[in-house]
Amino acid sequence: MSKKAYDDALPRLREQLVQMQVRLKQFPFKVMLIVAGLEGSGRSEYINTLTGWLDPRGVETFAFMEPSDEERERPFMWRFWRNLPANGCIGIYIGSWYAEALRGNSRRGKRARDDAHDLLKHIGQFEKLLTDNGTLIIKLWLHVSKANQGRHLRALEKNRDTAWRVTPEHWYQHRSYDRLARASRYVLDQTHTPAAPWVVLDIEDERARNLTLTEILIKRFDEHRRMLGARETAVPRPKPVPRAVTAAGRRRLGALPLDQELTEQEYRDKREKWLGRLHRAVRGAQDAKRSVVFVFEGWDAAGKGGSIRRLVSAIDARAYRVIPVAKPTDEEKAHHYLWRFWRCLPRDGRVTVFDRSWYGRVLVERVEGFARADEWHRAYDEINDFEQQLVEHGAVVVKFWLHISKDEQLRRFRLRERTPYKRHKINAEDWRNRRKWTAYEAALSDMFALTETPAAPWHLIPANNKQYARLQVLRLACKQIEAALKTKR
Amino acid sequence: MSKKAYDDALPRLREQLVQMQVRLKQFPFKVMLIVAGLEGSGRSEYINTLTGWLDPRGVETFAFMEPSDEERERPFMWRFWRNLPANGCIGIYIGSWYAEALRGNSRRGKRARDDAHDLLKHIGQFEKLLTDNGTLIIKLWLHVSKANQGRHLRALEKNRDTAWRVTPEHWYQHRSYDRLARASRYVLDQTHTPAAPWVVLDIEDERARNLTLTEILIKRFDEHRRMLGARETAVPRPKPVPRAVTAAGRRRLGALPLDQELTEQEYRDKREKWLGRLHRAVRGAQDAKRSVVFVFEGWDAAGKGGSIRRLVSAIDARAYRVIPVAKPTDEEKAHHYLWRFWRCLPRDGRVTVFDRSWYGRVLVERVEGFARADEWHRAYDEINDFEQQLVEHGAVVVKFWLHISKDEQLRRFRLRERTPYKRHKINAEDWRNRRKWTAYEAALSDMFALTETPAAPWHLIPANNKQYARLQVLRLACKQIEAALKTKR
Repeated sequence: MSKKAYDDALPRLREQLVQMQVRLKQFPFKVMLIVAGLEGSGRSEYINTLTGWLDPRGVETFAFMEPSDEERERPFMWRFWRNLPANGCIGIYIGSWYAEALRGNSRRGKRARDDAHDLLKHIGQFEKLLTDNGTLIIKLWLHVSKANQGRHLRALEKNRDTAWRVTPEHWYQHRSYDRLARASRYVLDQTHTPAAPWVVLDIEDERARNLTLTEILIKRFDEHRRMLGARETAVPRPKPVPRAVTAAGRRRLGALPLDQELTEQEYRDKREKWLGRLHRAVRGAQDAKRSVVFVFEGWDAAGKGGSIRRLVSAIDARAYRVIPVAKPTDEEKAHHYLWRFWRCLPRDGRVTVFDRSWYGRVLVERVEGFARADEWHRAYDEINDFEQQLVEHGAVVVKFWLHISKDEQLRRFRLRERTPYKRHKINAEDWRNRRKWTAYEAALSDMFALTETPAAPWHLIPANNKQYARLQVLRLACKQIEAALKTKR
Repeated sequence: MSKKAYDDALPRLREQLVQMQVRLKQFPFKVMLIVAGLEGSGRSEYINTLTGWLDPRGVETFAFMEPSDEERERPFMWRFWRNLPANGCIGIYIGSWYAEALRGNSRRGKRARDDAHDLLKHIGQFEKLLTDNGTLIIKLWLHVSKANQGRHLRALEKNRDTAWRVTPEHWYQHRSYDRLARASRYVLDQTHTPAAPWVVLDIEDERARNLTLTEILIKRFDEHRRMLGARETAVPRPKPVPRAVTAAGRRRLGALPLDQELTEQEYRDKREKWLGRLHRAVRGAQDAKRSVVFVFEGWDAAGKGGSIRRLVSAIDARAYRVIPVAKPTDEEKAHHYLWRFWRCLPRDGRVTVFDRSWYGRVLVERVEGFARADEWHRAYDEINDFEQQLVEHGAVVVKFWLHISKDEQLRRFRLRERTPYKRHKINAEDWRNRRKWTAYEAALSDMFALTETPAAPWHLIPANNKQYARLQVLRLACKQIEAALKTKR
């Protein structure tokens, strides 16, 4: 392409880019642009050109070197979750999860193959979750032939001023061209999905490449915006029915005996016993570099706070964090609902206690209509994948539902209203939730049916008797951690 | 204290706590509660009790184990900056920076003493910066005698169910009681400041302790709120004059020759030469595990973006990040203005480029009145301390001011307005800033006079000729990094 033709085409293209960024701010979603390819394909050159054209406010470039220990001590995808653009922004990825996938798939041996396979699965889930949530993912693969790659490297090396750009690593990759090309074909093939397809390009001329890639970006953006706009204004689709609307969960809750007897002395004795045992179990997890994630859900006034307080009294104060889940901040709102939970996952050997959790998506957000039906419907799978990643990484995921009867709730609400220092714990919202008891029961029924997994089972705790509930929490926490430590991670 | 007396006092106290939290949300500042003391002083017991009384939404407990590599590879205070409560919240600290200070000051040897001394200096600056900014820091030291410490540990060990609470570390600390007590007296003495004084308490009875500590918290909170309220409604104090209102900075800028000649060929040749050299310099910094922090400031349209783009083209894409500084998010607004910059400091061996920076505090925020006079006046010291910490940690801090004439700015503004894809770069605000040219010149003069330090000097770049400016940026960046690498960190 001639310089003249290029210069003539640029003003219009750059104007379109600017418009794109303005529109993205008005109707915010995430754009993730992955520019991948082997050495000498012109990835960095293109990214450098493109970032020169874009308004830097609203663009973030993400690149990845060796993971840090904070990253290694969490599920593999954590480092990518912490490197996401906010809604309204464009994230440009050099490297990305595909660098790892390529490395994995070019290695030999069964273990390497299995790991690589798991990784591709997680990548698929990650991209699906993001695109389902409105994110535009554009994946560009810049092809370069072995001959051109060699020519490119030699030309750089010949010039004294650019020779520094070529490292031994580049020549190593050149010698491994065939193996890397094979691996990349496989990875592309496995991750080419309708929602996030690959575009493979083979354009030698830098100017033509710059124009073509940018046109693709603009075109995909416009299509995506129209598609999301259409979804916004569409006649509401019929509410999807969760896959398993069973009465099983409800029956399970209904069958739960709620009123247990316990003397004060029995409670104290047993509490000390279980606290000691829990302390040893958590110590064991720490020694084994396994993290523990506690999830506390339950009816309003079911006693989550009190149970958590007793639980953590058995844990070294430096090793745990309690996360009370309230209204998201605006940084959190600019992301997928799971982002705020990824954000506070514990490192290996540490404990995080969630006081309410991601299950809000399929409980309050479903019942109150804060999430669209397709959103909360999708959430069961997303949650299972999320917990699965935690468990695969070695975490113990302990989930509690604290269950009280409707009468017991009323009694506690009234007590809170009568007690000055408890009055702040009860407000109009609690009374409103209470009126929706039946809707919550339906949501609970689906939740238990759809998110009960062998790796992260639900513990239903009868909690009309607070002290009994606390003991059960301690006992079941012990049991699950002890059992998990017996399995290899 | 009898159980009866305790139970009688509680309701009123807990009500006050609840009111405190409500008020804190309405008139938001940070509360940082540091509960320190030797083993057996009842720290954890009190924190456990207190968190049981507080509404968990709005309370965060911070504790610190060994620093992670991400923490070690940044200035020491980084891990505390990343663990601050937001405004409107209470942060409760177990351990905190005082654990480290105690450890440091109980060691022997000159090196240990020097390090410990530096640490106490940083702690002082950190607490001053926070309290100046409206934060309430309450520091409680719970005293325990050696005899009581021993009694406490033995009592726990005797009971089969609580024996697990005592570890060899506890007994080691007991044997070292005298040394630790000496070190703690020294640390308390050195960090007892009017703004963040220590309260030392010696109360053996747990109930009396719970009440007294909580009363102190409530009392200090009320005093602090009144003090801040008085400041809000006070008759504006006379505008403080910066310590050095010199004409030196202005003269320096005035004397800068702005128009340099350069042929296209000269530019290209020199650019390649300096890019190569910069590449080697940054590689050298990476090998030496030194980070580089670039600060780009300059008049609107001075060419910051273009200079940054050329600069980073010499750096491995995975090793640098460009941070365009725009409007803070609400999480950022709930913190000190430096928080957002601490947040994106590079790890050892990495590079961060700030496109505008913390200097906004003493430029736009001063000129536009977004910061009160006492705030921006304080900022010079805060900024110097901040950069000093970076440099002490081994970072190279390279600061540029891109300078153009008022006429040249006008020419560029008009060009932007005429060019469709540049139109977004110019808006009413740019024209408004331009009208305040003289006010900015005064602010710049103070900035250069007050934040020019040997460790982090300012580079004034004549930038009427863009290409010349880019070469200067490359050249000065090289020189400073090369010189820094010759010094030991």
